[in-house]
Amino acid sequence: MGKMILTILIAGVLLVQPSRAAPAATTTTAAASLPVVEKRVFTLPRHVTVAGEVIPNVRLGYETYGKLNERGDNAIFIAHFYSGNSHAAGRYSPTDPTPGYWDAIIGPGKAIDTNRYFVISADTFANLGATDPKVTTTGPASIDPRTGKAYGMRFPVVSLRDSVTAHRALLEQLGVKRLVAVAGASGGAMQAMEWAALYPDFVERVIHVIGPGFEIHPWAIALVDAWTTPIRMDPAWNNGDYYDGPGPRVGLAKSLKLLTLTARHWHWARETYGYAESARLPDPERFIAGQFQIVDALDQAGEARAAAVDANHMIYMSRAGSLYRLSDAEIAGIRAKLLFIPAESDLVFPPQFSEQAAARFAAAGGRAELFTLRGGGGHLDGVFAIAQAAETIRRFIESP
Amino acid sequence: MGKMILTILIAGVLLVQPSRAAPAATTTTAAASLPVVEKRVFTLPRHVTVAGEVIPNVRLGYETYGKLNERGDNAIFIAHFYSGNSHAAGRYSPTDPTPGYWDAIIGPGKAIDTNRYFVISADTFANLGATDPKVTTTGPASIDPRTGKAYGMRFPVVSLRDSVTAHRALLEQLGVKRLVAVAGASGGAMQAMEWAALYPDFVERVIHVIGPGFEIHPWAIALVDAWTTPIRMDPAWNNGDYYDGPGPRVGLAKSLKLLTLTARHWHWARETYGYAESARLPDPERFIAGQFQIVDALDQAGEARAAAVDANHMIYMSRAGSLYRLSDAEIAGIRAKLLFIPAESDLVFPPQFSEQAAARFAAAGGRAELFTLRGGGGHLDGVFAIAQAAETIRRFIESP
Repeated sequence: MGKMILTILIAGVLLVQPSRAAPAATTTTAAASLPVVEKRVFTLPRHVTVAGEVIPNVRLGYETYGKLNERGDNAIFIAHFYSGNSHAAGRYSPTDPTPGYWDAIIGPGKAIDTNRYFVISADTFANLGATDPKVTTTGPASIDPRTGKAYGMRFPVVSLRDSVTAHRALLEQLGVKRLVAVAGASGGAMQAMEWAALYPDFVERVIHVIGPGFEIHPWAIALVDAWTTPIRMDPAWNNGDYYDGPGPRVGLAKSLKLLTLTARHWHWARETYGYAESARLPDPERFIAGQFQIVDALDQAGEARAAAVDANHMIYMSRAGSLYRLSDAEIAGIRAKLLFIPAESDLVFPPQFSEQAAARFAAAGGRAELFTLRGGGGHLDGVFAIAQAAETIRRFIESP
Repeated sequence: MGKMILTILIAGVLLVQPSRAAPAATTTTAAASLPVVEKRVFTLPRHVTVAGEVIPNVRLGYETYGKLNERGDNAIFIAHFYSGNSHAAGRYSPTDPTPGYWDAIIGPGKAIDTNRYFVISADTFANLGATDPKVTTTGPASIDPRTGKAYGMRFPVVSLRDSVTAHRALLEQLGVKRLVAVAGASGGAMQAMEWAALYPDFVERVIHVIGPGFEIHPWAIALVDAWTTPIRMDPAWNNGDYYDGPGPRVGLAKSLKLLTLTARHWHWARETYGYAESARLPDPERFIAGQFQIVDALDQAGEARAAAVDANHMIYMSRAGSLYRLSDAEIAGIRAKLLFIPAESDLVFPPQFSEQAAARFAAAGGRAELFTLRGGGGHLDGVFAIAQAAETIRRFIESP
């Protein structure tokens, strides 16, 4: 199709970037829809956490797209982001209005081609969607078999690495012998890098989308903790023991609002809301109870999302993200090729972090590529604008 | 001293920038300390707000440095930022450990030279420091003469423009005939621009430090509102009626924490705290109650600041900032010269906003200059790193 691709090698990092004027990449082969997707559940009798605690009766949800070959070596794992789950692609029924979040790049003929690859995604420990019927997770909302009651804040601290090792056991159960790639956005990008560090001979490629590089930075540690402040301020949170009632719905909605705001960008705010005033809470210049539309809309979105989110799980997932930090030895041990895909307007994990990590890895002799998503959607461009990187991801997966 | 100054005219904006390698600017003439500073109070029998409400018995604090000349035309006004007050420079006693926040650039022989200029700063309406003995303000914590009780959330909405018009009345009382300059950081930068828009024949220069340009952007509207979420979540807030008790101290501390975090930057976070764990709440990887030092330190700083801040005032000041937006006609009417001083690591009002505003003003035939503060301290570099701009400010004030 004659698409212009600018390929530059800077400090050992292969920069693959369409020119700014180029349209968003579209798949070059005919893409079809996935067959109806089914959520499954896998179990582990026990999991020993990184910190040494035992979690019995682990149950985690997962989805697969495509078929595993006989040698078990055509698999790609998709790790999900902070507020996401294993529904990465496809629809649950022919009338399902919304496909999985990365449906633009996962499916028959798409960048992650399910005609060729067996794609697996799994729910993490302490997945936010504990009350979502399509999510199965083990976390603070689970029943502690020792007491017969929900763990609440007595659940052990889990790191993203705990989810990775549990997902590794799932792949064992499924007969996967090798991963062509692990891909993920944000918290999923951190898990993808953990996979490469923990299992250097098992993981051939990492696709690290809107991630922080090899470690979360301290500012983000404070940010993901601050997201949970409204939950903790809600008296209905009750230090995490709320499972006999509706729970901290007000605080949870405000926490989700804060998450959404920081995962966006001023360009998005201006384009989407501008200076419009709320229709139901008008005249902020006259009434202190009045509001601008952006504030009211974020409130309503937070309230809508809260129905399917468990507040304690959000606290635990924030902690899990805060613990992401590979050691120098772990980074040195990574044998996978790395593709970093930051978003230029990302205010959570700005592109500099991907650039620095890619340069560091390349300087140590590793193979690193970088592709930057364009647009003003903020951190969430790693989900909503991923189609821009489709051809880059396709070539990366097929490259030797 | 042979300092290298790079002067470039781009899109009509004069860029004045020392080279990156240059040390932070220091004053080139001998600078001395201000005499002991006194806080005074001025009163207005009534103020009619922009929205048309009447506020009786206005009392606002102010400070002055230097002397007004006979013609009343050597005055410079300093507008304060969101959580600041009129203590811009000097000390309240010889043993006062900390001077006013811009003491680096205000004083005898300094960039804003009190040997030559009469410098005034005044507390805004709804100043955060309502319980600070050195602050005098009129706001929700004030007594409503109609009821004999604190206004609480019944206080009228006030904009930054309301503070500007009240401060204009103060200058009338003091005999000021003309302002050589109005300067301010952040919310103070917005007020400085309001001065130039409201009183084009009275204001000769605007020094707009870490400001948003001619309007707050919608993302920041949501951000400054989100800061106040913990206050509103605190049951002790009681919809603003808490003046018979200690008030929402927990929520207020968390709100101030959120403000501080977003006013900083990842570079600051890494340099100041890194991945250290809290000494009093250790082992975040093992205990959910454990914390990283950055989280614990921000919590403690929020708690310490809360003692001198009124929660309702914070809500009202967030609203005041949200209302900052000059009309096209107001911008076109500005006759002052403008100096924009953004900070390169500012995550609240990033430098692009100053660059765009300066270019817009220059394109319309106005005179605009731009100087960017270097460093990783975030938004607060507009306070803590202002010395870098000292020589630029000095030259700007003295330029025709």
